[in-house]
Amino acid sequence: MHTLRLLALASGLVAATPALAQQGTKADPTVLAKIKDEGLNRSKVMETAFYLTDVCGPRLANSEGLNRANQWTQKQLTSWGLTKATIEPWGTFGRGWDIEKSYVAMTAPYYHTLIGAPKAWTPSTNGPLKKQVVVVKATTEAELDKYKGQLRDKIVLLDVAAPKIGFEPDAKRYTAEELQRMADYKLEAAAAAPTSAEMEQRLAARRAMLALRTKLSDMILSEGAAAILSSRGGSDGTFFTSNGAPYAADAKPVLPELEMAPEDQLRLIRLAEAGIPVELELETRTRFQSQDLKGYNVVAEIPGTDKKLKSEVVMLGAHIDSWHAATGATDNAAGCAVMMEAVRILKAAGVQPRRTIRIALWGEEEQGLFGSRGYVKNHFADPATMKLLPEHEKLAAYFNLDNGAGKIRGIYAQGNEAAAPIFQEWLKPFADMGATTVTLRNTGGTDHLSFDAVGLPGFQFIQDPLDYGTRTHHTNMDTYERLPADDMKQASVLVASFVYQAAMRDQKLPRKPLPAAKPEQRM
Amino acid sequence: MHTLRLLALASGLVAATPALAQQGTKADPTVLAKIKDEGLNRSKVMETAFYLTDVCGPRLANSEGLNRANQWTQKQLTSWGLTKATIEPWGTFGRGWDIEKSYVAMTAPYYHTLIGAPKAWTPSTNGPLKKQVVVVKATTEAELDKYKGQLRDKIVLLDVAAPKIGFEPDAKRYTAEELQRMADYKLEAAAAAPTSAEMEQRLAARRAMLALRTKLSDMILSEGAAAILSSRGGSDGTFFTSNGAPYAADAKPVLPELEMAPEDQLRLIRLAEAGIPVELELETRTRFQSQDLKGYNVVAEIPGTDKKLKSEVVMLGAHIDSWHAATGATDNAAGCAVMMEAVRILKAAGVQPRRTIRIALWGEEEQGLFGSRGYVKNHFADPATMKLLPEHEKLAAYFNLDNGAGKIRGIYAQGNEAAAPIFQEWLKPFADMGATTVTLRNTGGTDHLSFDAVGLPGFQFIQDPLDYGTRTHHTNMDTYERLPADDMKQASVLVASFVYQAAMRDQKLPRKPLPAAKPEQRM
Repeated sequence: MHTLRLLALASGLVAATPALAQQGTKADPTVLAKIKDEGLNRSKVMETAFYLTDVCGPRLANSEGLNRANQWTQKQLTSWGLTKATIEPWGTFGRGWDIEKSYVAMTAPYYHTLIGAPKAWTPSTNGPLKKQVVVVKATTEAELDKYKGQLRDKIVLLDVAAPKIGFEPDAKRYTAEELQRMADYKLEAAAAAPTSAEMEQRLAARRAMLALRTKLSDMILSEGAAAILSSRGGSDGTFFTSNGAPYAADAKPVLPELEMAPEDQLRLIRLAEAGIPVELELETRTRFQSQDLKGYNVVAEIPGTDKKLKSEVVMLGAHIDSWHAATGATDNAAGCAVMMEAVRILKAAGVQPRRTIRIALWGEEEQGLFGSRGYVKNHFADPATMKLLPEHEKLAAYFNLDNGAGKIRGIYAQGNEAAAPIFQEWLKPFADMGATTVTLRNTGGTDHLSFDAVGLPGFQFIQDPLDYGTRTHHTNMDTYERLPADDMKQASVLVASFVYQAAMRDQKLPRKPLPAAKPEQRM
Repeated sequence: MHTLRLLALASGLVAATPALAQQGTKADPTVLAKIKDEGLNRSKVMETAFYLTDVCGPRLANSEGLNRANQWTQKQLTSWGLTKATIEPWGTFGRGWDIEKSYVAMTAPYYHTLIGAPKAWTPSTNGPLKKQVVVVKATTEAELDKYKGQLRDKIVLLDVAAPKIGFEPDAKRYTAEELQRMADYKLEAAAAAPTSAEMEQRLAARRAMLALRTKLSDMILSEGAAAILSSRGGSDGTFFTSNGAPYAADAKPVLPELEMAPEDQLRLIRLAEAGIPVELELETRTRFQSQDLKGYNVVAEIPGTDKKLKSEVVMLGAHIDSWHAATGATDNAAGCAVMMEAVRILKAAGVQPRRTIRIALWGEEEQGLFGSRGYVKNHFADPATMKLLPEHEKLAAYFNLDNGAGKIRGIYAQGNEAAAPIFQEWLKPFADMGATTVTLRNTGGTDHLSFDAVGLPGFQFIQDPLDYGTRTHHTNMDTYERLPADDMKQASVLVASFVYQAAMRDQKLPRKPLPAAKPEQRM
């Protein structure tokens, strides 16, 4: 205890006490020092990340890997002393799908193994295929028509842009200037958003592109092609996987398809376009399950200890599902490991939170934030009707982490002007760890949006980007190697302290005005 | 012709005439302008590179791909009007080896396809294997002994360092400062070379490492392991291949072995070390041929036209063999394509060289500069005896290109102080193309060394490094995408002009003093 008081003094936490007190909090600086000490000196975050990634494996929505991860996290959270650890269904998702075999090679004009993986929810080849290829390139429906009668029994190659030589580094950290720009962001700046005419134009272009893609898929299928090799980009042996998968129980049939490393795809295309016969050998074996179409979240709690406040809840979460070509390390085992580590630290630090702390590991985020949206609808409100459920008023705050494995540099206040100065105060003891920035800016693409959509205070942290956008996110290279231990430890400590502060504060976090019902957002 | 004179004026080639004349040359500035025009405006260098890489495929020493490339280049050089195009044996190399199938996947604890390729000259698995793994890590012989009795029927996993997150770009170009440092290099600076004590220490460390590696291989084999998975590094799906292969006709037996992407290798190792049973499925089918153990070079000529000088030869060359996991685009289809383009440009420009120009595409460079060393021994001199053959005095110069696909920034004069000012003069018209630097520095690792070793003036160009050292050289990602067309065109023009100048000069290039015989260099 003495050591911890020294630590508290050294880290400036004791000095911060008066400011904390002004906010109306019972947060104890000694506990904050314990959090730092536990998280930096006895971290288990990398061990947790190892289990989520390597041991559980890829965690595609409703896959066996996701099921393994759900089981493991439920058990692990319980072993750390959390209560009510539950694998809670959020609603109907769709079919389960796993890979049993994937092999693709060029066998003529010479042998070469190719790098790729079955596109999610595509069927098996039913044994090995050995077929010629045909390249299909079309930017209009008229161009598509030219391929009629040419695709039967062929493996169709779709085009991809050539990767660029790497004059730019994959990974970066935010500079002081970039962080300052975020801090300086004003809500009125949202006026710089595209005009409705621009938006309409973009939407029309997107609709046309999707229509062409649908027509392309339909034609390849109806013309009797054997399989598809496509590529969504990448470089150096890294390839991206894509959205828009046929997981619904009643999805229309599609062909076996592999998503390929662009270097391999482009070699095949160049050869075929030069008139050199290209033969591929291809075998995919995938397994569907339709026994259980439900999706799940894993939730667990540290019960509150304050008679008045323990019915209120501070939530923290991250999505546990991933794409399937790697182990979803930065997207988002990192976020889950950090959130799990945060609650482990809180338990290890012996925290007695006034409010209940609840961790949620969301399922099916990658297919459309389904896990968190389902949870919010079941517990808080449906944004389509905005009829509030009793739990709605009990949520003090939700904190999310889903921008890779980089350390936390601050937090997006998501337009919540009243919350910003509170976060500024909470960040103060972490200036020496690089986290100083509160921005009013919104950030999207992940599960805090589900809370924000029904007027609940949901926030996402700002993280150093590292190589998340360029190399790991949705690729076959989203692996354990991409997780820098120091960043993961820093993030764990910071999240634990935020959650602790939110649990000890006299008031819940301030909220923005309730949004209007959005019938089109029916879930 | 008129257009070309204008071009010549515009490019400063005409202004250079007096200086060229001072050197005693009949080089015609109009021809130099034609070279530039043909090489920049009607280039075929990328088409040539496509055939060497994609169409011929990997070109491992004495492989079918190398044989295809030899046949194709002989035909192609002939079609451009070169004479005496010959696939010329240089001596005995060893066995031919090609891959017919390569498949490796983790099948437990879950399915995951792995990125890797059979190590060169390793045998087949004789059908698919399905085996448990064992991790072997040893830095001393004593540590090795601990694995006795544990390897039977297992797939052995060897360790590899974890790849780093990419905060540094893969590719770069030389800065003005770096080029200036090369230009400022003084021969005496060689004194900064390691002392013989340091050298002895390094050699001892290397010998110990090699001894350990041999013992490791012997033990894995004698203990009855089923196969080996190793990794020589890389990142992002890129892996390196390694030297030290058993290509000799009487090489001792080795196990099937795959060289793996480190991310995949490390996942297996982490799982196995955590006590989680890992099962792999593995199939390699490789084909040896011992019918023809010879190695070959491809040579072809543009005959000289000067009665007195046509018996003298200006040579240019690059090695045509590659490693096997990709198509050897930067190592060294790029060099071959540029050298071939240089002679094509010279033919297209209608050059009438005083001396004979001879291109050589060397075989088996990757295994020890064998093609060029054999050629030099057969035609010029054996460095072991330094008995000079009659052709020795006829070689005016040899120019080599083997540092990837980056544009030429100058030339290594290889300690030849008399040659340096001549090169400086020849570079003058190319300052606007970024080639200005002559350095006295030696550069090693490739075929000009075979000439230098017998006192012949052999030179290698300085090229922008791009991602040669970091990403492409000896990896599975040494593919056509890595060849920037503008760099390749610039290099072709520059080489063509150097060769032309050397063929037109009154004197052969100056030589360094003849080296002493080195009996240990017997080939």
